[in-house]
Amino acid sequence: MSQSFPMISLAIPTLCLVGAGPGDPELITIKAVKTLQRADVVLYDALVNDALLEYAANASKKVFVGKRYGCHALSQQEINYLITDYGTRYDNIVRLKGGDPFVFGRAQEEIDAALEAGMEVQIIPGISSALAVPASEMIPLTCRGVNESFWVVTGTTRNGGLSSDIRLAAQSTATVIILMAMSKLEEIKEIFSQHGKSETPVAIIQNGTTPDSKMVIGKIHDICFRAQHAELNNPAIIVIGEVVNLNREVMQKEVLQEVEISSGTHTYENISPLCPSSL
Amino acid sequence: MSQSFPMISLAIPTLCLVGAGPGDPELITIKAVKTLQRADVVLYDALVNDALLEYAANASKKVFVGKRYGCHALSQQEINYLITDYGTRYDNIVRLKGGDPFVFGRAQEEIDAALEAGMEVQIIPGISSALAVPASEMIPLTCRGVNESFWVVTGTTRNGGLSSDIRLAAQSTATVIILMAMSKLEEIKEIFSQHGKSETPVAIIQNGTTPDSKMVIGKIHDICFRAQHAELNNPAIIVIGEVVNLNREVMQKEVLQEVEISSGTHTYENISPLCPSSL
Repeated sequence: MSQSFPMISLAIPTLCLVGAGPGDPELITIKAVKTLQRADVVLYDALVNDALLEYAANASKKVFVGKRYGCHALSQQEINYLITDYGTRYDNIVRLKGGDPFVFGRAQEEIDAALEAGMEVQIIPGISSALAVPASEMIPLTCRGVNESFWVVTGTTRNGGLSSDIRLAAQSTATVIILMAMSKLEEIKEIFSQHGKSETPVAIIQNGTTPDSKMVIGKIHDICFRAQHAELNNPAIIVIGEVVNLNREVMQKEVLQEVEISSGTHTYENISPLCPSSL
Repeated sequence: MSQSFPMISLAIPTLCLVGAGPGDPELITIKAVKTLQRADVVLYDALVNDALLEYAANASKKVFVGKRYGCHALSQQEINYLITDYGTRYDNIVRLKGGDPFVFGRAQEEIDAALEAGMEVQIIPGISSALAVPASEMIPLTCRGVNESFWVVTGTTRNGGLSSDIRLAAQSTATVIILMAMSKLEEIKEIFSQHGKSETPVAIIQNGTTPDSKMVIGKIHDICFRAQHAELNNPAIIVIGEVVNLNREVMQKEVLQEVEISSGTHTYENISPLCPSSL
Protein backbone atom coordinates (compact mmCIF):
# COMPACT_ATOMS: atom_id res chain seq x y z
CA MET A 1 0.00 0.00 0.00
CA SER A 2 1.46 3.37 -0.94
CA GLN A 3 1.77 6.09 1.69
CA SER A 4 1.34 9.55 0.24
CA PHE A 5 0.86 11.46 3.53
CA PRO A 6 3.62 12.21 6.04
CA MET A 7 3.89 9.45 8.68
CA ILE A 8 2.91 10.44 12.19
CA SER A 9 4.10 7.85 14.67
CA LEU A 10 1.84 7.09 17.62
CA ALA A 11 4.44 4.86 19.29
CA ILE A 12 6.18 6.05 22.44
CA PRO A 13 9.84 6.65 21.51
CA THR A 14 12.27 4.24 23.18
CA LEU A 15 15.82 4.73 24.36
CA CYS A 16 17.56 1.38 24.28
CA LEU A 17 20.91 1.22 26.07
CA VAL A 18 22.82 -1.60 24.38
CA GLY A 19 26.07 -3.22 25.52
CA ALA A 20 28.49 -3.53 22.61
CA GLY A 21 30.83 -5.92 24.43
CA PRO A 22 34.57 -5.70 25.07
CA GLY A 23 35.99 -5.21 21.56
CA ASP A 24 35.68 -8.47 19.59
CA PRO A 25 32.65 -7.77 17.34
CA GLU A 26 31.38 -11.35 17.82
CA LEU A 27 31.07 -10.79 21.57
CA ILE A 28 27.73 -9.01 21.17
CA THR A 29 24.42 -10.70 22.01
CA ILE A 30 21.68 -11.82 19.63
CA LYS A 31 19.34 -9.42 21.46
CA ALA A 32 21.68 -6.48 20.85
CA VAL A 33 21.96 -7.33 17.15
CA LYS A 34 18.16 -7.47 16.82
CA THR A 35 17.87 -4.12 18.57
CA LEU A 36 20.45 -2.54 16.25
CA GLN A 37 18.58 -3.93 13.23
CA ARG A 38 15.45 -1.96 14.13
CA ALA A 39 17.27 1.20 15.26
CA ASP A 40 16.31 4.54 13.72
CA VAL A 41 19.22 6.35 15.37
CA VAL A 42 22.44 4.96 16.86
CA LEU A 43 24.54 7.07 19.23
CA TYR A 44 27.84 5.23 19.75
CA ASP A 45 30.97 5.49 21.90
CA ALA A 46 34.69 5.34 21.11
CA LEU A 47 35.11 1.88 22.62
CA VAL A 48 32.52 0.38 20.29
CA ASN A 49 33.83 -1.74 17.41
CA ASP A 50 32.82 -0.01 14.15
CA ALA A 51 31.89 -3.38 12.60
CA LEU A 52 28.82 -3.46 14.85
CA LEU A 53 27.33 -0.42 13.11
CA GLU A 54 26.76 -2.60 10.05
CA TYR A 55 23.91 -4.31 11.92
CA ALA A 56 22.14 -0.94 11.98
CA ALA A 57 21.63 -0.88 8.21
CA ASN A 58 18.17 0.69 8.57
CA ALA A 59 19.22 3.52 10.85
CA SER A 60 18.80 7.05 9.47
CA LYS A 61 21.52 8.42 11.74
CA LYS A 62 24.68 6.96 13.23
CA VAL A 63 26.28 9.53 15.49
CA PHE A 64 29.67 9.24 17.18
CA VAL A 65 29.43 10.75 20.67
CA GLY A 66 32.52 9.36 22.40
CA LYS A 67 35.92 10.53 23.47
CA ARG A 68 38.93 9.78 21.30
CA TYR A 69 42.59 10.52 22.08
CA GLY A 70 41.56 12.48 25.13
CA CYS A 71 39.35 14.86 23.13
CA HIS A 72 35.89 15.23 24.52
CA ALA A 73 33.60 14.80 21.52
CA LEU A 74 30.43 15.63 23.42
CA SER A 75 29.61 16.34 27.06
CA GLN A 76 27.17 14.10 28.93
CA GLN A 77 24.60 16.93 28.78
CA GLU A 78 25.00 17.15 25.02
CA ILE A 79 24.52 13.37 24.66
CA ASN A 80 21.39 13.60 26.84
CA TYR A 81 20.12 16.39 24.61
CA LEU A 82 20.67 14.32 21.46
CA ILE A 83 18.78 11.36 22.97
CA THR A 84 15.70 13.43 23.80
CA ASP A 85 15.86 15.50 20.62
CA TYR A 86 16.04 12.44 18.36
CA GLY A 87 13.24 11.01 20.55
CA THR A 88 10.89 13.73 19.25
CA ARG A 89 11.46 12.61 15.64
CA TYR A 90 12.29 8.86 15.76
CA ASP A 91 10.88 5.81 17.57
CA ASN A 92 13.96 3.68 18.25
CA ILE A 93 17.00 5.44 19.65
CA VAL A 94 19.87 3.07 20.40
CA ARG A 95 22.69 4.15 22.71
CA LEU A 96 25.50 1.71 21.90
CA LYS A 97 28.04 1.61 24.74
CA GLY A 98 31.32 -0.29 25.10
CA GLY A 99 31.12 -3.30 27.43
CA ASP A 100 27.98 -3.32 29.59
CA PRO A 101 25.88 -0.14 29.92
CA PHE A 102 25.39 -0.63 33.68
CA VAL A 103 29.10 -1.01 34.50
CA PHE A 104 30.66 2.47 34.76
CA GLY A 105 28.60 3.51 31.75
CA ARG A 106 26.89 6.67 33.07
CA ALA A 107 23.66 4.99 31.98
CA GLN A 108 21.61 6.52 34.78
CA GLU A 109 22.04 10.09 33.52
CA GLU A 110 20.79 9.08 30.06
CA ILE A 111 17.90 7.05 31.51
CA ASP A 112 16.80 9.99 33.66
CA ALA A 113 16.88 12.36 30.67
CA ALA A 114 14.87 9.95 28.51
CA LEU A 115 12.24 9.28 31.20
CA GLU A 116 11.85 12.99 31.87
CA ALA A 117 11.20 13.48 28.16
CA GLY A 118 8.46 10.81 28.29
CA MET A 119 10.48 8.15 26.49
CA GLU A 120 10.51 4.47 27.36
CA VAL A 121 13.79 2.89 28.38
CA GLN A 122 15.17 -0.58 27.78
CA ILE A 123 18.53 -2.16 28.76
CA ILE A 124 20.35 -4.86 26.77
CA PRO A 125 23.31 -6.07 28.84
CA GLY A 126 26.69 -6.51 27.21
CA ILE A 127 29.79 -8.59 27.90
CA SER A 128 31.76 -6.42 30.31
CA SER A 129 35.44 -5.99 29.51
CA ALA A 130 36.08 -6.37 33.26
CA LEU A 131 35.16 -10.06 32.91
CA ALA A 132 35.85 -10.91 29.27
CA VAL A 133 39.29 -9.36 28.86
CA PRO A 134 40.89 -11.45 31.64
CA ALA A 135 39.01 -14.51 30.23
CA SER A 136 40.47 -13.88 26.77
CA GLU A 137 43.92 -14.33 28.36
CA MET A 138 42.78 -17.45 30.24
CA ILE A 139 42.59 -15.67 33.60
CA PRO A 140 39.44 -16.72 35.47
CA LEU A 141 38.05 -14.16 37.93
CA THR A 142 37.22 -16.89 40.40
CA CYS A 143 38.67 -20.34 40.95
CA ARG A 144 37.50 -22.85 43.53
CA GLY A 145 40.14 -23.11 46.23
CA VAL A 146 41.89 -19.89 45.14
CA ASN A 147 39.31 -17.16 45.84
CA GLU A 148 35.60 -16.70 46.49
CA SER A 149 34.87 -13.28 45.02
CA PHE A 150 35.89 -10.61 42.55
CA TRP A 151 35.75 -6.84 42.87
CA VAL A 152 35.50 -4.39 39.97
CA VAL A 153 36.64 -0.82 40.70
CA THR A 154 37.03 2.27 38.53
CA GLY A 155 40.33 4.10 38.66
CA THR A 156 38.74 7.36 37.56
CA THR A 157 36.09 8.79 39.85
CA ARG A 158 33.97 11.89 39.41
CA ASN A 159 36.60 14.10 41.05
CA GLY A 160 39.41 12.55 38.98
CA GLY A 161 41.03 10.75 41.93
CA LEU A 162 41.52 7.06 42.55
CA SER A 163 38.49 5.39 44.15
CA SER A 164 38.92 5.00 47.91
CA ASP A 165 37.45 1.51 47.49
CA ILE A 166 40.83 0.37 46.16
CA ARG A 167 42.30 0.77 49.65
CA LEU A 168 39.60 -1.61 50.96
CA ALA A 169 39.97 -3.97 48.00
CA ALA A 170 43.68 -4.33 48.77
CA GLN A 171 42.74 -5.75 52.19
CA SER A 172 40.41 -8.40 50.79
CA THR A 173 41.04 -11.82 49.26
CA ALA A 174 39.04 -10.90 46.12
CA THR A 175 40.42 -10.77 42.61
CA VAL A 176 40.54 -7.00 42.06
CA ILE A 177 39.84 -5.65 38.56
CA ILE A 178 40.58 -1.95 38.04
CA LEU A 179 39.36 -0.13 34.92
CA MET A 180 40.77 3.07 33.40
CA ALA A 181 43.59 3.38 35.91
CA MET A 182 46.83 3.26 33.93
CA SER A 183 47.79 6.78 35.01
CA LYS A 184 47.41 5.70 38.66
CA LEU A 185 49.43 2.49 38.53
CA GLU A 186 52.15 3.82 40.87
CA GLU A 187 49.51 4.81 43.44
CA ILE A 188 47.83 1.36 43.17
CA LYS A 189 51.22 -0.31 43.69
CA GLU A 190 51.78 1.79 46.85
CA ILE A 191 48.36 0.89 48.29
CA PHE A 192 48.71 -2.86 47.71
CA SER A 193 52.31 -2.82 49.00
CA GLN A 194 51.18 -1.09 52.21
CA HIS A 195 48.83 -4.04 52.77
CA GLY A 196 51.54 -6.66 52.41
CA LYS A 197 50.71 -7.56 48.82
CA SER A 198 53.91 -6.67 46.97
CA GLU A 199 54.26 -10.30 45.81
CA THR A 200 50.67 -10.60 44.54
CA PRO A 201 50.51 -11.32 40.78
CA VAL A 202 49.15 -8.66 38.42
CA ALA A 203 48.16 -8.75 34.75
CA ILE A 204 47.58 -5.66 32.61
CA ILE A 205 45.77 -6.21 29.33
CA GLN A 206 45.44 -3.47 26.71
CA ASN A 207 42.93 -3.72 23.81
CA GLY A 208 41.77 -7.09 25.17
CA THR A 209 39.76 -9.46 22.92
CA THR A 210 40.97 -7.63 19.77
CA PRO A 211 43.87 -8.46 17.38
CA ASP A 212 45.85 -5.60 19.02
CA SER A 213 45.64 -7.23 22.45
CA LYS A 214 48.80 -6.85 24.53
CA MET A 215 49.43 -8.27 28.00
CA VAL A 216 52.09 -7.83 30.66
CA ILE A 217 52.28 -10.02 33.76
CA GLY A 218 54.22 -9.14 36.89
CA LYS A 219 53.86 -8.69 40.61
CA ILE A 220 52.73 -5.60 42.50
CA HIS A 221 56.36 -4.58 43.21
CA ASP A 222 57.50 -4.64 39.56
CA ILE A 223 54.33 -4.07 37.53
CA CYS A 224 54.92 -0.33 36.97
CA PHE A 225 58.33 -0.97 35.43
CA ARG A 226 57.00 -3.81 33.27
CA ALA A 227 53.98 -1.82 32.05
CA GLN A 228 56.16 1.18 31.21
CA HIS A 229 58.71 -1.03 29.44
CA ALA A 230 55.92 -2.58 27.33
CA GLU A 231 54.42 0.89 26.71
CA LEU A 232 50.96 -0.13 27.89
CA ASN A 233 48.22 2.52 28.01
CA ASN A 234 44.45 2.87 28.41
CA PRO A 235 42.12 1.27 27.46
CA ALA A 236 43.56 -1.36 29.75
CA ILE A 237 42.30 -3.70 32.45
CA ILE A 238 44.37 -4.29 35.59
CA VAL A 239 43.79 -7.67 37.27
CA ILE A 240 45.29 -8.26 40.73
CA GLY A 241 45.12 -11.63 42.47
CA GLU A 242 46.38 -15.20 42.63
CA VAL A 243 44.13 -16.19 39.69
CA VAL A 244 46.63 -14.42 37.41
CA ASN A 245 48.91 -17.42 38.02
CA LEU A 246 46.38 -19.64 36.26
CA ASN A 247 47.18 -17.93 32.99
CA ARG A 248 48.57 -20.54 30.58
CA GLU A 249 51.58 -18.53 29.49
CA VAL A 250 52.73 -18.24 33.09
CA MET A 251 52.20 -21.96 33.63
CA GLN A 252 54.20 -22.78 30.52
CA LYS A 253 57.08 -20.53 31.60
CA GLU A 254 57.01 -22.28 34.96
CA VAL A 255 57.44 -25.69 33.29
CA LEU A 256 60.21 -24.32 31.09
CA GLN A 257 62.11 -22.93 34.06
CA GLU A 258 61.70 -26.17 35.96
CA VAL A 259 63.39 -28.00 33.07
CA GLU A 260 66.22 -25.42 32.95
CA ILE A 261 66.70 -25.61 36.69
CA SER A 262 66.85 -29.40 36.79
CA SER A 263 70.08 -29.24 34.78
CA GLY A 264 71.57 -26.38 36.87
CA THR A 265 72.35 -25.63 40.50
CA HIS A 266 69.30 -23.49 41.46
CA THR A 267 66.41 -24.84 43.47
CA TYR A 268 62.98 -24.47 41.92
CA GLU A 269 61.65 -22.33 44.78
CA ASN A 270 64.17 -19.59 44.08
CA ILE A 271 62.78 -18.78 40.67
CA SER A 272 59.50 -16.98 40.28
CA PRO A 273 57.58 -17.89 37.13
CA LEU A 274 56.56 -14.23 37.00
CA CYS A 275 60.11 -12.95 36.74
CA PRO A 276 61.69 -14.31 33.55
CA SER A 277 65.42 -13.64 33.27
CA SER A 278 64.89 -11.07 30.50
CA LEU A 279 63.89 -8.52 33.14
CA MET B 1 32.65 -37.53 -2.63
CA SER B 2 31.56 -40.64 -0.77
CA GLN B 3 33.47 -41.75 2.31
CA SER B 4 33.48 -45.51 2.70
CA PHE B 5 36.29 -45.77 5.25
CA PRO B 6 36.08 -44.74 8.90
CA MET B 7 37.16 -41.10 9.35
CA ILE B 8 40.36 -40.57 11.30
CA SER B 9 40.64 -36.96 12.42
CA LEU B 10 44.08 -35.40 12.54
CA ALA B 11 42.82 -32.25 14.28
CA ILE B 12 43.65 -31.67 17.93
CA PRO B 13 40.36 -32.02 19.84
CA THR B 14 39.18 -28.77 21.44
CA LEU B 15 37.27 -28.14 24.64
CA CYS B 16 35.37 -24.90 24.24
CA LEU B 17 33.90 -23.46 27.45
CA VAL B 18 30.94 -21.36 26.34
CA GLY B 19 28.91 -18.90 28.44
CA ALA B 20 25.19 -19.47 27.90
CA GLY B 21 24.16 -16.21 29.56
CA PRO B 22 21.73 -15.54 32.41
CA GLY B 23 18.53 -17.23 31.19
CA ASP B 24 17.03 -15.20 28.34
CA PRO B 25 18.06 -17.26 25.25
CA GLU B 26 18.76 -14.05 23.28
CA LEU B 27 21.43 -13.03 25.78
CA ILE B 28 24.01 -15.31 24.19
CA THR B 29 26.80 -13.97 21.95
CA ILE B 30 27.23 -14.43 18.20
CA LYS B 31 30.55 -16.16 18.95
CA ALA B 32 28.84 -18.66 21.27
CA VAL B 33 26.18 -19.43 18.64
CA LYS B 34 28.85 -20.06 15.98
CA THR B 35 30.70 -22.35 18.38
CA LEU B 36 27.53 -24.33 19.12
CA GLN B 37 26.86 -24.67 15.38
CA ARG B 38 30.13 -26.54 14.86
CA ALA B 39 29.93 -28.60 18.08
CA ASP B 40 30.21 -32.38 17.87
CA VAL B 41 29.31 -32.84 21.53
CA VAL B 42 27.57 -30.43 23.94
CA LEU B 43 27.77 -30.99 27.70
CA TYR B 44 25.29 -28.60 29.34
CA ASP B 45 24.29 -27.43 32.80
CA ALA B 46 20.95 -27.02 34.54
CA LEU B 47 21.00 -23.23 34.33
CA VAL B 48 21.29 -23.30 30.54
CA ASN B 49 18.16 -22.41 28.58
CA ASP B 50 17.16 -25.50 26.54
CA ALA B 51 16.36 -23.29 23.52
CA LEU B 52 20.11 -22.75 23.05
CA LEU B 53 20.64 -26.44 22.26
CA GLU B 54 18.82 -25.89 18.96
CA TYR B 55 21.88 -24.03 17.70
CA ALA B 56 23.82 -27.29 18.05
CA ALA B 57 21.87 -29.02 15.28
CA ASN B 58 24.97 -30.82 14.01
CA ALA B 59 26.03 -32.22 17.38
CA SER B 60 26.04 -36.02 17.70
CA LYS B 61 25.61 -35.84 21.46
CA LYS B 62 23.90 -33.38 23.80
CA VAL B 63 24.50 -34.49 27.37
CA PHE B 64 22.91 -32.96 30.47
CA VAL B 65 25.51 -32.89 33.25
CA GLY B 66 24.03 -30.40 35.73
CA LYS B 67 22.31 -30.44 39.06
CA ARG B 68 18.54 -30.20 39.22
CA TYR B 69 16.34 -29.94 42.33
CA GLY B 70 19.34 -30.62 44.54
CA CYS B 71 20.11 -33.93 42.82
CA HIS B 72 23.68 -34.27 41.74
CA ALA B 73 23.50 -35.48 38.16
CA LEU B 74 27.24 -35.94 37.75
CA SER B 75 30.26 -35.14 39.92
CA GLN B 76 32.94 -32.75 38.67
CA GLN B 77 35.26 -35.75 38.19
CA GLU B 78 32.63 -37.48 36.06
CA ILE B 79 32.19 -34.34 33.92
CA ASN B 80 35.98 -34.11 33.49
CA TYR B 81 36.00 -37.78 32.42
CA LEU B 82 33.28 -37.15 29.81
CA ILE B 83 35.21 -34.17 28.37
CA THR B 84 38.39 -36.16 27.88
CA ASP B 85 36.61 -39.33 26.76
CA TYR B 86 34.59 -37.52 24.08
CA GLY B 87 37.86 -35.77 23.17
CA THR B 88 39.27 -39.12 22.00
CA ARG B 89 36.40 -39.54 19.52
CA TYR B 90 35.25 -36.03 18.55
CA ASP B 91 36.98 -32.77 17.54
CA ASN B 92 34.72 -30.07 19.02
CA ILE B 93 33.55 -30.58 22.57
CA VAL B 94 31.45 -27.67 23.87
CA ARG B 95 30.91 -27.22 27.59
CA LEU B 96 27.87 -24.93 27.79
CA LYS B 97 27.69 -23.22 31.19
CA GLY B 98 25.09 -20.87 32.68
CA GLY B 99 26.23 -17.22 32.81
CA ASP B 100 29.97 -16.80 32.26
CA PRO B 101 32.28 -19.84 32.51
CA PHE B 102 34.93 -17.92 34.48
CA VAL B 103 32.54 -16.63 37.18
CA PHE B 104 32.06 -19.38 39.78
CA GLY B 105 31.94 -21.90 36.94
CA ARG B 106 34.56 -24.44 38.09
CA ALA B 107 36.09 -23.91 34.67
CA GLN B 108 39.65 -24.43 35.85
CA GLU B 109 39.10 -28.07 36.80
CA GLU B 110 37.73 -28.83 33.32
CA ILE B 111 40.52 -26.87 31.61
CA ASP B 112 43.17 -28.77 33.58
CA ALA B 113 41.61 -32.12 32.68
CA ALA B 114 41.41 -31.21 28.98
CA LEU B 115 45.01 -29.91 28.82
CA GLU B 116 46.31 -33.00 30.60
CA ALA B 117 44.55 -35.09 27.95
CA GLY B 118 46.31 -33.11 25.21
CA MET B 119 43.22 -31.16 24.15
CA GLU B 120 43.17 -27.49 23.19
CA VAL B 121 41.03 -25.12 25.24
CA GLN B 122 39.06 -22.05 24.23
CA ILE B 123 36.86 -19.70 26.30
CA ILE B 124 33.79 -17.84 25.00
CA PRO B 125 32.64 -15.41 27.71
CA GLY B 126 28.96 -15.17 28.55
CA ILE B 127 26.70 -12.53 30.06
CA SER B 128 27.06 -13.14 33.80
CA SER B 129 23.81 -13.27 35.76
CA ALA B 130 25.59 -11.26 38.46
CA LEU B 131 25.49 -8.26 36.10
CA ALA B 132 22.55 -8.91 33.77
CA VAL B 133 19.92 -9.93 36.31
CA PRO B 134 20.09 -6.63 38.26
CA ALA B 135 20.15 -4.80 34.89
CA SER B 136 16.98 -6.60 33.79
CA GLU B 137 15.27 -4.98 36.81
CA MET B 138 16.81 -1.59 36.01
CA ILE B 139 19.34 -1.79 38.84
CA PRO B 140 22.76 -0.56 37.66
CA LEU B 141 25.76 -2.02 39.48
CA THR B 142 27.49 1.32 39.43
CA CYS B 143 26.18 4.86 39.26
CA ARG B 144 28.29 8.00 39.16
CA GLY B 145 27.94 9.79 42.49
CA VAL B 146 26.42 6.72 44.22
CA ASN B 147 29.26 4.17 44.20
CA GLU B 148 32.58 3.44 42.52
CA SER B 149 32.76 -0.34 42.52
CA PHE B 150 30.87 -3.61 42.68
CA TRP B 151 31.79 -6.86 44.38
CA VAL B 152 30.54 -10.30 43.35
CA VAL B 153 30.70 -13.00 46.04
CA THR B 154 29.52 -16.61 46.15
CA GLY B 155 27.35 -17.68 49.07
CA THR B 156 28.41 -21.29 48.73
CA THR B 157 32.09 -22.04 49.17
CA ARG B 158 33.94 -25.33 48.85
CA ASN B 159 33.32 -26.18 52.52
CA GLY B 160 29.63 -25.24 52.29
CA GLY B 161 29.95 -22.12 54.46
CA LEU B 162 29.37 -18.48 53.61
CA SER B 163 32.40 -16.80 52.05
CA SER B 164 34.38 -14.81 54.63
CA ASP B 165 34.69 -12.10 51.97
CA ILE B 166 31.08 -11.11 52.73
CA ARG B 167 32.23 -9.74 56.11
CA LEU B 168 34.72 -7.51 54.28
CA ALA B 169 32.21 -6.58 51.58
CA ALA B 170 29.81 -5.35 54.27
CA GLN B 171 32.42 -2.79 55.32
CA SER B 172 32.92 -1.39 51.83
CA THR B 173 30.97 1.12 49.78
CA ALA B 174 30.66 -1.34 46.87
CA THR B 175 27.43 -2.70 45.48
CA VAL B 176 27.58 -6.29 46.76
CA ILE B 177 26.13 -9.07 44.60
CA ILE B 178 25.83 -12.48 46.27
CA LEU B 179 25.10 -15.61 44.23
CA MET B 180 23.59 -18.89 45.45
CA ALA B 181 23.05 -17.66 48.99
CA MET B 182 19.31 -17.89 49.68
CA SER B 183 19.81 -20.42 52.47
CA LYS B 184 22.22 -17.99 54.16
CA LEU B 185 20.09 -14.86 54.00
CA GLU B 186 19.68 -14.61 57.79
CA GLU B 187 23.46 -14.83 58.24
CA ILE B 188 24.01 -12.15 55.57
CA LYS B 189 21.50 -9.89 57.33
CA GLU B 190 23.40 -10.34 60.62
CA ILE B 191 26.76 -9.48 59.05
CA PHE B 192 25.52 -6.32 57.33
CA SER B 193 23.60 -5.23 60.44
CA GLN B 194 26.75 -5.61 62.56
CA HIS B 195 28.43 -3.13 60.22
CA GLY B 196 25.71 -0.51 60.58
CA LYS B 197 23.95 -1.33 57.33
CA SER B 198 20.49 -2.39 58.49
CA GLU B 199 18.93 0.41 56.42
CA THR B 200 20.83 -0.42 53.20
CA PRO B 201 18.48 -1.39 50.34
CA VAL B 202 18.46 -4.97 49.07
CA ALA B 203 16.91 -6.59 46.00
CA ILE B 204 16.50 -10.34 45.53
CA ILE B 205 15.75 -11.52 42.00
CA GLN B 206 14.79 -15.10 41.22
CA ASN B 207 14.88 -16.50 37.64
CA GLY B 208 16.07 -13.11 36.39
CA THR B 209 15.83 -12.27 32.64
CA THR B 210 13.22 -15.04 32.11
CA PRO B 211 9.40 -14.83 31.99
CA ASP B 212 9.34 -16.38 35.53
CA SER B 213 11.38 -13.51 36.96
CA LYS B 214 10.34 -12.48 40.48
CA MET B 215 11.79 -9.64 42.55
CA VAL B 216 11.50 -8.50 46.15
CA ILE B 217 12.95 -5.21 47.38
CA GLY B 218 13.54 -4.36 51.03
CA LYS B 219 16.22 -3.28 53.43
CA ILE B 220 18.77 -5.41 55.25
CA HIS B 221 16.59 -5.45 58.42
CA ASP B 222 13.42 -6.76 56.72
CA ILE B 223 14.67 -8.63 53.64
CA CYS B 224 14.47 -12.11 55.22
CA PHE B 225 10.80 -11.64 56.06
CA ARG B 226 10.03 -10.22 52.62
CA ALA B 227 11.88 -13.00 50.76
CA GLN B 228 10.16 -15.67 52.84
CA HIS B 229 6.75 -14.04 52.34
CA ALA B 230 7.31 -13.98 48.56
CA GLU B 231 8.61 -17.60 48.66
CA LEU B 232 11.83 -16.74 46.84
CA ASN B 233 14.43 -19.47 46.33
CA ASN B 234 17.62 -20.22 44.37
CA PRO B 235 18.56 -19.55 41.61
CA ALA B 236 18.47 -16.02 42.92
CA ILE B 237 20.74 -12.99 42.93
CA ILE B 238 21.03 -10.82 46.05
CA VAL B 239 22.00 -7.18 45.37
CA ILE B 240 22.92 -4.96 48.33
CA GLY B 241 23.60 -1.25 47.95
CA GLU B 242 22.17 2.21 47.35
CA VAL B 243 21.89 1.51 43.59
CA VAL B 244 18.84 -0.64 44.39
CA ASN B 245 17.00 2.64 44.96
CA LEU B 246 17.48 3.49 41.29
CA ASN B 247 15.11 0.69 40.33
CA ARG B 248 12.15 2.22 38.48
CA GLU B 249 9.47 0.42 40.49
CA VAL B 250 10.85 1.88 43.69
CA MET B 251 10.97 5.32 42.12
CA GLN B 252 7.37 4.99 40.94
CA LYS B 253 6.21 3.92 44.40
CA GLU B 254 8.01 6.94 45.78
CA VAL B 255 6.07 9.25 43.46
CA LEU B 256 2.81 7.46 44.33
CA GLN B 257 3.44 7.85 48.05
CA GLU B 258 4.32 11.48 47.62
CA VAL B 259 0.91 12.03 46.01
CA GLU B 260 -0.86 10.11 48.82
CA ILE B 261 1.04 12.01 51.47
CA SER B 262 0.29 15.41 50.01
CA SER B 263 -3.40 14.82 50.82
CA GLY B 264 -2.67 13.55 54.36
CA THR B 265 -0.81 14.71 57.46
CA HIS B 266 2.50 12.85 57.10
CA THR B 267 5.66 14.53 55.95
CA TYR B 268 7.37 12.97 52.95
CA GLU B 269 10.59 12.19 54.83
CA ASN B 270 8.80 9.86 57.24
CA ILE B 271 7.84 7.36 54.57
CA SER B 272 10.43 5.07 53.08
CA PRO B 273 9.78 4.16 49.47
CA LEU B 274 11.09 0.69 50.30
CA CYS B 275 8.39 -0.04 52.88
CA PRO B 276 4.99 -0.06 51.18
CA SER B 277 2.05 -0.16 53.56
CA SER B 278 1.15 -3.72 52.53
CA LEU B 279 3.92 -5.00 54.80
